Amino acid sequence: MTVDRNAPVGVFDSGVGGLTVAREIMRNLPSEKIIYFGDTARLPYGSKSPETILRYSRQIIRFLREQPVKAIVIACNTASAFALDTVRGETDIPVIGVIEAGALVAAQKTRTKRIGVIGTEGTVSSRIHERFLKSIDPSLSIFGKACPLFVPLVEEGWLKDPVTYEVASRYLADLKEQKIDTLILGCTHYPLLRSVIREVMGDSVELVNPAYETALELAALLEKKGLTSSEEVPEGFPYRFFVSDLAEKFTDFANSILPYDVTMTRKIDIENY
Amino acid sequence: MTVDRNAPVGVFDSGVGGLTVAREIMRNLPSEKIIYFGDTARLPYGSKSPETILRYSRQIIRFLREQPVKAIVIACNTASAFALDTVRGETDIPVIGVIEAGALVAAQKTRTKRIGVIGTEGTVSSRIHERFLKSIDPSLSIFGKACPLFVPLVEEGWLKDPVTYEVASRYLADLKEQKIDTLILGCTHYPLLRSVIREVMGDSVELVNPAYETALELAALLEKKGLTSSEEVPEGFPYRFFVSDLAEKFTDFANSILPYDVTMTRKIDIENY
Repeated sequence: MTVDRNAPVGVFDSGVGGLTVAREIMRNLPSEKIIYFGDTARLPYGSKSPETILRYSRQIIRFLREQPVKAIVIACNTASAFALDTVRGETDIPVIGVIEAGALVAAQKTRTKRIGVIGTEGTVSSRIHERFLKSIDPSLSIFGKACPLFVPLVEEGWLKDPVTYEVASRYLADLKEQKIDTLILGCTHYPLLRSVIREVMGDSVELVNPAYETALELAALLEKKGLTSSEEVPEGFPYRFFVSDLAEKFTDFANSILPYDVTMTRKIDIENY
Repeated sequence: MTVDRNAPVGVFDSGVGGLTVAREIMRNLPSEKIIYFGDTARLPYGSKSPETILRYSRQIIRFLREQPVKAIVIACNTASAFALDTVRGETDIPVIGVIEAGALVAAQKTRTKRIGVIGTEGTVSSRIHERFLKSIDPSLSIFGKACPLFVPLVEEGWLKDPVTYEVASRYLADLKEQKIDTLILGCTHYPLLRSVIREVMGDSVELVNPAYETALELAALLEKKGLTSSEEVPEGFPYRFFVSDLAEKFTDFANSILPYDVTMTRKIDIENY
């Protein structure tokens, strides 16, 4: 198979959260084009079963392959936890998730060897961070906590609200008691709650946002496979956005977090893939 | 077309919420069999577009027609708002929603002619209650308020929690100021927050839960169409439950709100309908 090194990178998520990952790729790999897909018709992924998330991920990968893309970033922790291993074996282009890069950094940063992981129910109950971290260093202790209200609170825009603070205090109480020194923000929405989480956990706990590390992992992988773009500055606006529902609402959100004016998002029928 | 009067009634919702409607049908129409479908793979419906909700509703109706059922209850306010009118014209069996029955009761109960409606973003922005209520009595004043955090709070099980009280106080402040005397609980999850909503609104405001009225509307409709079951007590366990994801989790919730031991829920692939 010949892959065009100047083809775009595919990035997908259940909705808007993965834009925090796309943003890091834009900042750190400015010569790469991106096709982003947000599965807004079927979000959230965090409360659904592994089989369902795998089916959804396969449909999205079929869509992205058709564009075509040269590599795929699963910018959703739940889909990374449930689908990455399987789809890697089914796809002839490189696929990476957001779990490993973040976990690696956490393993490097911790001094007390006590690491917390917060995420959706699906991500936390999969214990995927724990398995990966223990394979790096079996002496690490990992403490997971699902925070199901964080995504709806972000979507309501209550980012620095007393209600959000109270919810965070309750969710994070166990992790504080466990005296972790490093906390992985294991859901792409959570960096938007960084200031509340910081206030609850205190300055002594390092917060790890896997988005930046994932962009660096992508850069290294493209380099290794000889797939780094040869165009220094891609022509025109190098980013395209697709969703499965409500393109306008997505565009508004994209404009609020990306340093570009996203003028058009196309809606596609993902169930047909 | 010949419809079997002893066929089951189909009831559907985005997830578990519609079980509050199924429960009223069980209580008030004990000779009717029920096939319930919860679209747990694609919930929630409240934040998605009219086109997407219509497409989902059509798939579910195709599934229910195949069973076959003799009538369909859309036990979800958002789907009632976005799909009922259209699917009624496409289906040769009776279809009812949960909007009209609740609105009728609210119109009868109000004395000050000031009615509040709470529901999902989709239901409230559709203004369907307002249109229906004004067609009954143009002098009514209707005040709508979307409460997007209520469903996740119910799903987290924080039914009588200080956080839920604080969220409810904030959402309902405008409606209190408008001095409504009647409040329609326009989402099937909300009756589970009844005690918090009552505490915030005070005893002078009548809370309308459309589930009971919908069961009565169904009874009247079956009677009118000659479709009332002729079996006084259906044989065996007359209720069957289907979902699109995580059958076990659904069964646990069903057992917590239904007066029966729901032992089995079947998972089907709704995207194939």
